[in-house]
Amino acid sequence: MLNMAQDRVTRIAITPVAFHDLPLLNTVGVHEPFALRAIVEVETADGLLGLGETYGDEAHLARLRAAADALIGCEVFAVNDAAERVARALRKDTTTGGHGMSGMVTGSSTADRVLSPFEVALLDIQGRTVGRPVCDLLGGRLRDEVAYSGYLFYKWAGHPGQPDDEWGAALDPEGIVRQAHRLIDGYGFTALKLKGGVLPPQQEIAAILALRAEFPGLPLRLDPNAAWTVDTSVMVGEALAGVIEYLEDPTPGITGMAEVARRVPMPLATNMCVVAFDDVPPAIRADAVGVILSDHHFWGGLRRSQLLGGLCRTFGLGLSMHSNSHLGISLAAMTHLAAATPNLNYACDTHWPWKRADEDVITPGVLTFSSGSVPVPAGPGLGVELDREALGRLHEQYLASGLRSRDDTGYMQSFDPSYTAVSPRW
Amino acid sequence: MLNMAQDRVTRIAITPVAFHDLPLLNTVGVHEPFALRAIVEVETADGLLGLGETYGDEAHLARLRAAADALIGCEVFAVNDAAERVARALRKDTTTGGHGMSGMVTGSSTADRVLSPFEVALLDIQGRTVGRPVCDLLGGRLRDEVAYSGYLFYKWAGHPGQPDDEWGAALDPEGIVRQAHRLIDGYGFTALKLKGGVLPPQQEIAAILALRAEFPGLPLRLDPNAAWTVDTSVMVGEALAGVIEYLEDPTPGITGMAEVARRVPMPLATNMCVVAFDDVPPAIRADAVGVILSDHHFWGGLRRSQLLGGLCRTFGLGLSMHSNSHLGISLAAMTHLAAATPNLNYACDTHWPWKRADEDVITPGVLTFSSGSVPVPAGPGLGVELDREALGRLHEQYLASGLRSRDDTGYMQSFDPSYTAVSPRW
Repeated sequence: MLNMAQDRVTRIAITPVAFHDLPLLNTVGVHEPFALRAIVEVETADGLLGLGETYGDEAHLARLRAAADALIGCEVFAVNDAAERVARALRKDTTTGGHGMSGMVTGSSTADRVLSPFEVALLDIQGRTVGRPVCDLLGGRLRDEVAYSGYLFYKWAGHPGQPDDEWGAALDPEGIVRQAHRLIDGYGFTALKLKGGVLPPQQEIAAILALRAEFPGLPLRLDPNAAWTVDTSVMVGEALAGVIEYLEDPTPGITGMAEVARRVPMPLATNMCVVAFDDVPPAIRADAVGVILSDHHFWGGLRRSQLLGGLCRTFGLGLSMHSNSHLGISLAAMTHLAAATPNLNYACDTHWPWKRADEDVITPGVLTFSSGSVPVPAGPGLGVELDREALGRLHEQYLASGLRSRDDTGYMQSFDPSYTAVSPRW
Repeated sequence: MLNMAQDRVTRIAITPVAFHDLPLLNTVGVHEPFALRAIVEVETADGLLGLGETYGDEAHLARLRAAADALIGCEVFAVNDAAERVARALRKDTTTGGHGMSGMVTGSSTADRVLSPFEVALLDIQGRTVGRPVCDLLGGRLRDEVAYSGYLFYKWAGHPGQPDDEWGAALDPEGIVRQAHRLIDGYGFTALKLKGGVLPPQQEIAAILALRAEFPGLPLRLDPNAAWTVDTSVMVGEALAGVIEYLEDPTPGITGMAEVARRVPMPLATNMCVVAFDDVPPAIRADAVGVILSDHHFWGGLRRSQLLGGLCRTFGLGLSMHSNSHLGISLAAMTHLAAATPNLNYACDTHWPWKRADEDVITPGVLTFSSGSVPVPAGPGLGVELDREALGRLHEQYLASGLRSRDDTGYMQSFDPSYTAVSPRW
């Protein structure tokens, strides 16, 4: 019988990397000069290699290492067993932090967050073992390419003390429209999302209305990361009625979101008040959200993200996809997942355009944007190959960067000591 | 790249079969002398064969054939695509009936019910293609064997006009206890379920109490198939407090179940008021049930049954497994699914002991009970092989039986013209 050897995990390597990031603004501060990620390599007795990518914060790295120890000996197809091993390994964990999302997503399940890169790597190996792309292990792709949205950010012209970057400043509606043109010219995006919560709400409303005027047909979204009170959220929601397809996390918490949901005409989306399976029942009971943004990095990998998709379908909720700054392994995983998810009703978020084109840990060429979409990689597994030389270079960059945890707020405070991250801000 | 050929479905055969059944009583009548099933064979261009098993009712067979036509050309790993093809093929369907469950489960999704055997067959082929058991395609097994419950039935001594069968009559507590001994002696079951709704509730309470006295440690369940009013259900629930692990479908409908749930101490289980994904939100809103009995035959196959398992886990509901009269292909599929389902908290139901040991469509030897459990088949795919000669024999039996749809009520009325199926009965 072909492949009946129970191939087991014999070695796991976890390599933190840093890649250049731009001064993108959000409601808790500003992106530092480098974004951190961890690259997970899972190797089997047969010498097969599977890849995963996750947050690079120090506390998260410690948990990844504890989980990796527990996964030695796990069978490649035993994803359920892997989940139990990781959960057991983390039972003793008492560390805090390491969410990798700068305080914006803190309630996610630690076990799911740690499991994710290993689950993806096991599916990568499974796909390589059987000569099938990962989407085939998820029920098969329903589309040949996955649509992503152009992710607009308010930003400074450059990191303070450094020359202006090639994108320049975007601090008003004109700057955001200019940025949108550049994103669309470069990638062909057919949907746009603005990271808000940065400027007073009236200015962000003006930016959205400027986008609507400039790009009449394009779906638009606004995400202030819970920067607003309920009343401010309602004011913005009324001002943007018929203009945005959804309003993302206008206000903190399920209770506040439920109140806003009752008073605004568009669906509310979230990747802040529903970030773990435990959040789903109370959110549904409160009718707090209309769209959940999945993210395999904190929902426990691709199979568990499929479960989230099924939950959304069962309860008539929309489904979209959240992103943090990421590299190509994550983009490949997101694309396989999205392609195999029947009810992914919206273009997925991605920070992809904000990293340097020449900075990644995978061999270039597979992940290309056309009309805002990425074709599903056709090769076995995730369909991407590790560039070990590039991995070493980005690891050296991590060591040299001095950064060990994402801290948008601290970086902002280094320029403005009076700055505080408060939610809601307006 | 190994196996990268997109192997497609080239031929599907659907064969109705009949196998001997005993006069088992339930609240809508009595089992006829034969149970009907349909055996689905899916064949690929490469000559691989996958097996599925489902209901054999005539209306269901017609839908299976329509779905089969739509599945020609489907890729073997494209289970998501298969689901969409089946749903499309059934959009024109206006036939009624064919639920295969004698009026006891009528609200299940037609599309899911028709998809199920094809999904199982595709997973069987996938497993054969990659040399892995089906449970490995479901995340891997978490247990090496799956516990089943001993399924007790009130029954006549034999079919009217035929000699008594080897089990004899069971129409009182003594008969049920005798039957339980025989089931346990033969299979080692460590949990027992009584099909109720047949005799007045006090007699069924007495039977359960007799089982409790005879088998002090064994988990017990009672399933009257919605034969009782809310008040009768509460009376039984109070009488059996601390005696049964759950009370299954005491009364019809989500509203009635919710009222009973508020008034009895044990969880309510259901395979009647929650039989499709559309039933889940209202049941959860009403807090109507504590345990859902999954059944891959009407929940759309193994992957969608896993989704149901995830829904139960997310909402803190228990999960068990329902059965109808079935053959070995179904038992293999149930066992793979159960082995890969982390939160299957209860022994699964099976009608297995009620069929003749020498009547099946698979080569004997793989599915064996030990201590009430079935070891997960280790071979690739479902791990069972079609016995074509036996299939032909059971198909001839189907043709000769004259039965074309399950009709427990009509069979009962042939002996007692005054009999009617009413719910609730008491």
